[in-house]
Amino acid sequence: MEKLKHHIFVCNSARMNGEVKGVCNSKESIEIIQNFAEEISDRELDAEVMVTSTGCLGLCTQGPVVIVYPEGVWYGKVTPDDVEEIVESHIEGGEIVSRLEI
Amino acid sequence: MEKLKHHIFVCNSARMNGEVKGVCNSKESIEIIQNFAEEISDRELDAEVMVTSTGCLGLCTQGPVVIVYPEGVWYGKVTPDDVEEIVESHIEGGEIVSRLEI
Repeated sequence: MEKLKHHIFVCNSARMNGEVKGVCNSKESIEIIQNFAEEISDRELDAEVMVTSTGCLGLCTQGPVVIVYPEGVWYGKVTPDDVEEIVESHIEGGEIVSRLEI
Repeated sequence: MEKLKHHIFVCNSARMNGEVKGVCNSKESIEIIQNFAEEISDRELDAEVMVTSTGCLGLCTQGPVVIVYPEGVWYGKVTPDDVEEIVESHIEGGEIVSRLEI
């Protein structure tokens, strides 16, 4: 498989049985995922950037949590409004959004 | 945050609304996740290796899918029995399990 340039993971707080609960989920994680998907599509990055929801990442007090690989950068307390900046600065510009980094 | 040496993502087929269905889920993804968690714990790798479930990764015909970052290696048609080899060979030994790579 062609390697992705960036793979964005957004905590959705899903438990192993599929139950969706917890801090990240209550804090608009689905809207965050949708905003990432839209930004990726609008900027025609679909071939090199993917967004995926995850189960609980164990840092609930910092939620919603977003991780970007392969860099291994963790962002905390992300809001839907932060998504555009993460994509523009980090994904396109290569500059980590330090105010959100944990 | 201290960077993980490896972050293992296992597709659990969870949809955005938390509904768990699809190929990966029907193929024992929960057992795969549990086996990874056990191997990590048994080998005392908890500080540097994490396993996380994900929503659908879009490669359902290749499921269950496992991705290891930061390497960005995708494994397909993984069974619970493959987990020990992935941990021993790839995570501990640094050698990708090529028969499972997609």
